[in-house]
Amino acid sequence: MADATIIDGRALAGKVKDDLTRRVTALQRQGKNVRLDAVLVGGDQGARMYANNQAKACGAVGIEYVLHELPDTSSESDIIATVDMLNESKVVTAIMVHMPLPDGVDAYEIQARISSDKDVEGVNPANIGNIVFGKRSLVPCTALAVMEMIESTGIELQGARAVCVGASTIVGKPVAVLLMQAEATVTSTNAHTKNQELLTREADILVTAAGVPNLITAEFVKHGAVVIDVGINRVKGKDGKKRTVGDVDFEGVQGIAGFVSPVPGGVGPMTVAMMLRNTVQAAE
Amino acid sequence: MADATIIDGRALAGKVKDDLTRRVTALQRQGKNVRLDAVLVGGDQGARMYANNQAKACGAVGIEYVLHELPDTSSESDIIATVDMLNESKVVTAIMVHMPLPDGVDAYEIQARISSDKDVEGVNPANIGNIVFGKRSLVPCTALAVMEMIESTGIELQGARAVCVGASTIVGKPVAVLLMQAEATVTSTNAHTKNQELLTREADILVTAAGVPNLITAEFVKHGAVVIDVGINRVKGKDGKKRTVGDVDFEGVQGIAGFVSPVPGGVGPMTVAMMLRNTVQAAE
Repeated sequence: MADATIIDGRALAGKVKDDLTRRVTALQRQGKNVRLDAVLVGGDQGARMYANNQAKACGAVGIEYVLHELPDTSSESDIIATVDMLNESKVVTAIMVHMPLPDGVDAYEIQARISSDKDVEGVNPANIGNIVFGKRSLVPCTALAVMEMIESTGIELQGARAVCVGASTIVGKPVAVLLMQAEATVTSTNAHTKNQELLTREADILVTAAGVPNLITAEFVKHGAVVIDVGINRVKGKDGKKRTVGDVDFEGVQGIAGFVSPVPGGVGPMTVAMMLRNTVQAAE
Repeated sequence: MADATIIDGRALAGKVKDDLTRRVTALQRQGKNVRLDAVLVGGDQGARMYANNQAKACGAVGIEYVLHELPDTSSESDIIATVDMLNESKVVTAIMVHMPLPDGVDAYEIQARISSDKDVEGVNPANIGNIVFGKRSLVPCTALAVMEMIESTGIELQGARAVCVGASTIVGKPVAVLLMQAEATVTSTNAHTKNQELLTREADILVTAAGVPNLITAEFVKHGAVVIDVGINRVKGKDGKKRTVGDVDFEGVQGIAGFVSPVPGGVGPMTVAMMLRNTVQAAE
């Protein structure tokens, strides 16, 4: 049997970015601003690296990127004051706040504070709630990336059986609701689910966001299924070097699935592209 | 085999109301206001009857109820102006807007306008989104009623298999997310779902909100399951008189389920109680 088609996140993201470059140019011609302001609190290395990559990604499509750095001694009200200032600013069209935040700062309070029409990460509860209402404006980027990757395969969602492995706030639950919105039959599983493989094996669409390497082996997958891997796990390879893998046993699953997204090069680059798209949309 | 235990919505609602009467008295002793302001646009008979019942239900637990009647010629901006006035008022602690609204008025825009901390029906997207965040403050009343009725049976939710039949914005999807939050394994089905009975038959918890009389017969139900019937359907009985039934074939299912909620006398009265509880909570 032929191997599964690989859903190339980098290629899909590239197409999205080409489109965004055109849209940013059009906005600028109309004299409109397209600008993302990010807030980084403290010196977390991972967050800083992410901010640097984000600056590059924005630059590549013509989005202005402004980073607001706050000391790690910042209080919740300091951070809220910065968010309020960005909410009110007429030149700022998009806002995001880098995680993690210092101990004692309630990330929920900060995220809920971001004006819902500038919230390009889709972390404000109103934007999460809008998914339930079928308004897909500023949806959490990762969930949006998953949906775009599923749709790229051309599979009919209405009536399809979908299983989401993992029920996190920012990925598992929003993806489940987006799939419900598309009229799929959706099952959400978690670490307490019994006989998980009996459920996943019935899935036409299998999304895994559990953060467990090799959780999804060939035995979990239905013949011809669309498999989207949201896991990002650092594991030590046979050569002793660390590498990034998803939740899916890629080699095994490739022999049975119809489509499978790789890690790296799958959901990751597409998530960045969705954040850029939300930014452009917020400006439009 | 013994018949299923009936989940008595009126009795459960009665207990909730007793508790609320005490809480309202306590608030009033502290000089705090507990007041629900409802907006009724136009002369819809059903809405008016609902408003009358609501006034009585509020009165019974000591909540002040104020009805704002607007003519059916009201525009979206007229209604928004009323909602804004109630949002800003210091004496108004709770707001709801009766459906239906006149043609051309976008119900979503009106609901999204209600201040999230006065939104006792839980229809503002921020309150729906808060479910995903595990914040259960002002949850849509019907979804909250369903959860309370499930919990009244003492069933362990973590790891349980739950199936929600019907994926509406105001019931099916929020219930599914609340069950995910409780770490159940949750399947959401809809009219496009194939072989629905194979799924429902595996459910430890079966919630039906499809609006189809006799949809759920004994063959759909697992032995000992908890069955919650959210359906409200008007059908003609053998005597030619109209009566209200749910989605469940009550007589048939009673012989196989462990617990079953009746219609009428199940989710309905409990939904009213949850609206009152949200109102008291908003005042607290």
